[in-house]
Amino acid sequence: MTQLLQSSKHLLGTKGLSESELISILDRAAYWEQYPVKVTGHLQGRFVANMFFENSTRTRFSFEVAEKRLGAEVLNFAAAVSSVQKGESIYDTVRTLESMGIDAGVIRMKPNGLLQELASKIKVPLINAGDGNSEHPTQALLDLYTMRKQFGEFKGLKVAIIGDIQHSRVARSNLWALQTLGAQVSFCAPPTMRAEELAEHAPYVTMDQALQSDVVMMLRVQLERHEGTVFGSPEEYRAAYGLTAERASKMAPHAIIMHPAPFNRNVEIDDELVECEKSRIFEQMSHGVPIRMAVIERALS
Amino acid sequence: MTQLLQSSKHLLGTKGLSESELISILDRAAYWEQYPVKVTGHLQGRFVANMFFENSTRTRFSFEVAEKRLGAEVLNFAAAVSSVQKGESIYDTVRTLESMGIDAGVIRMKPNGLLQELASKIKVPLINAGDGNSEHPTQALLDLYTMRKQFGEFKGLKVAIIGDIQHSRVARSNLWALQTLGAQVSFCAPPTMRAEELAEHAPYVTMDQALQSDVVMMLRVQLERHEGTVFGSPEEYRAAYGLTAERASKMAPHAIIMHPAPFNRNVEIDDELVECEKSRIFEQMSHGVPIRMAVIERALS
Amino acid sequence: MTQLLQSSKHLLGTKGLSESELISILDRAAYWEQYPVKVTGHLQGRFVANMFFENSTRTRFSFEVAEKRLGAEVLNFAAAVSSVQKGESIYDTVRTLESMGIDAGVIRMKPNGLLQELASKIKVPLINAGDGNSEHPTQALLDLYTMRKQFGEFKGLKVAIIGDIQHSRVARSNLWALQTLGAQVSFCAPPTMRAEELAEHAPYVTMDQALQSDVVMMLRVQLERHEGTVFGSPEEYRAAYGLTAERASKMAPHAIIMHPAPFNRNVEIDDELVECEKSRIFEQMSHGVPIRMAVIERALS
Repeated sequence: MTQLLQSSKHLLGTKGLSESELISILDRAAYWEQYPVKVTGHLQGRFVANMFFENSTRTRFSFEVAEKRLGAEVLNFAAAVSSVQKGESIYDTVRTLESMGIDAGVIRMKPNGLLQELASKIKVPLINAGDGNSEHPTQALLDLYTMRKQFGEFKGLKVAIIGDIQHSRVARSNLWALQTLGAQVSFCAPPTMRAEELAEHAPYVTMDQALQSDVVMMLRVQLERHEGTVFGSPEEYRAAYGLTAERASKMAPHAIIMHPAPFNRNVEIDDELVECEKSRIFEQMSHGVPIRMAVIERALS
Repeated sequence: MTQLLQSSKHLLGTKGLSESELISILDRAAYWEQYPVKVTGHLQGRFVANMFFENSTRTRFSFEVAEKRLGAEVLNFAAAVSSVQKGESIYDTVRTLESMGIDAGVIRMKPNGLLQELASKIKVPLINAGDGNSEHPTQALLDLYTMRKQFGEFKGLKVAIIGDIQHSRVARSNLWALQTLGAQVSFCAPPTMRAEELAEHAPYVTMDQALQSDVVMMLRVQLERHEGTVFGSPEEYRAAYGLTAERASKMAPHAIIMHPAPFNRNVEIDDELVECEKSRIFEQMSHGVPIRMAVIERALS
Repeated sequence: MTQLLQSSKHLLGTKGLSESELISILDRAAYWEQYPVKVTGHLQGRFVANMFFENSTRTRFSFEVAEKRLGAEVLNFAAAVSSVQKGESIYDTVRTLESMGIDAGVIRMKPNGLLQELASKIKVPLINAGDGNSEHPTQALLDLYTMRKQFGEFKGLKVAIIGDIQHSRVARSNLWALQTLGAQVSFCAPPTMRAEELAEHAPYVTMDQALQSDVVMMLRVQLERHEGTVFGSPEEYRAAYGLTAERASKMAPHAIIMHPAPFNRNVEIDDELVECEKSRIFEQMSHGVPIRMAVIERALS
């Protein structure tokens, strides 16, 4: 994968991105965050297709704002309203859009492992907007951006990621990028939500230990995936692994709360914490736009 | 609400808009209707999000045309294809889009009363594109525009609104605005479709009386809400409260027919009346664009 | 229909288009295919509405890319997310968009025969993007474009169209246009998928005969329409009428494979043939953009 990433403009994951590549994206995002006008002509006449084979609100809009700020033409494809319903494969859809002359594709899909195969067959650069449980690199990059803005550097930064690690592409993309940058990642999850293959990369800790970190990153409980079989009720989840107001009060004064959203208020995070002083949740979202500008620009440069 | 409206660029309803504010919007719409080119650069580099938590064809497209004519960048959000399905609240979606840097939001939603609370928490101006049974101010404004174009002024103008008053945000927004401008509003509705709390503002009259008005405004029977329980069959509704060709023939020569659309042909209005000489229905729709240009411009100026 | 086509800018079908009109569209598409920049200002300030009352991926995107390359403003209407669900008719939707000031409409719909009636009532030019089993003229035009690019001319060109002729608007639009241009069209289909009314225009031949053509055009088996009642299983269909690798090996060295897509891999066409040397399938798709640029420009000039 490292070679694939280096030999093309694809952005399939943070795994394999070097420290200098990561920093270069963050620096360029900072440039865009400060940019004096909202819409530029940088990508005038270029077509970017957002191909979402899985529902999304924030990620899709964040990419769309980024693309339009760069002056690109935007095509929005959502599987639910297309002939994917007629059995058309993801590959055929992407090849179709490529044939029509798109210059880059942003893609989200459910199947794990398909993206790399796809990227090897498609000539236009693909940007991963979330694939299965595998990676969600732009989310990790905006998380990194938020952390750097808060703490200045990554070396020694303690980041705890709490929740359904097993199904989380956000956890994986953050893990790979944070480790490359020298941060210390730990996980906290119910036994049924752990990804055993990640245990060699980051330790599983208790909630009390996780709360000692500089960054407490909560993950969405994907209630629709578990339906009570893996973990009991939302109330039970909150009691055991939710970031309650009481738990948040134990965090260090300088520590911050993050969440990739969408969040379940009063399940993995208390309603009153979403916009509290420690929370960077909506700030994260606002960082998504300059990060995606940097990533799209990189794909097309 | 008056204070809220005056202290911000929100457009939550016509209730609380002063006569001069109403006239100023109508005048600016007239300016845009006559504007020599279709697309301008007035709102170049500004992002407007259309956030529709309830289905819509004409209102959404009318706003989109207005936004694009003003040169704005447009984001279209429809709840049916988003993570609202995953339980995300309306507030979180609007805050998310706000975080991404939108400059104004056009919003339609089912819940009554939520909009004011939302507007108090959101910094970007919100334009109500229809909320529950409460208000639909841009529809009323385009109705006013159509009436003014026909009759020149509002003082003493007799407007009868016929149909499901109880569930009609169009009736309410027209009532507040028309009264502010000095018109005489009356309602006509089956007993089960009356809004008792509006009886103090406008009298309920018979169909024969309603037909004596200068403007006969028919409302859509929302058959999907009633399913025969509130009023019998479509045929029975037509017989009792529909604008049939026979009834239309009793209207004064100068009087006009209006309808906010979409209409049920041969239920509340006879098929042959939709585009008859007295009808202003498609003219109303065409007025929606300049009205919304005026409203969006007001929100962003 | 000829008169209607000639008296307006509508593009309802290829039936009735003269040889010179067809060639003029192909020539203009060649101009656009070679055009040095991707986005032009030719249709700046013009609004084109894509009104799809039937699902589509490639056709809708192909039109959208074409419209944006010409600098037009684009409105996308898809029935599944609109008030067509509330019983609004196709006519009312198109009239509504016309009222809002669109300059041209691209339309796809299921009902047969409705389009001509619609075109007689609507002032803005309409471009048929597929109506029922009747016509799909831009698909045929891009097919012609692909054939001309391959073979230079149409006189005497042998084109076999294989599959569900009865339900195929692609077969009909190709038939009319190819005959006007002097090509020899033949059909190949299971008895239950033949259109008897077309038998006087083109002969039904066997698969072996069809494979002797210069162009072997496979049609999608619309499995969702037949469900085993008209023809057995996908495997049985493939065995009798599919373009298998073995059958493709019998084609002449210069002959090409075409398919309007989306395709069912290993039903009407073997997976390995989709992107084989003889296949022009994705090339066809890429030709859709310049063809549609030419057609939209023609409608608005």
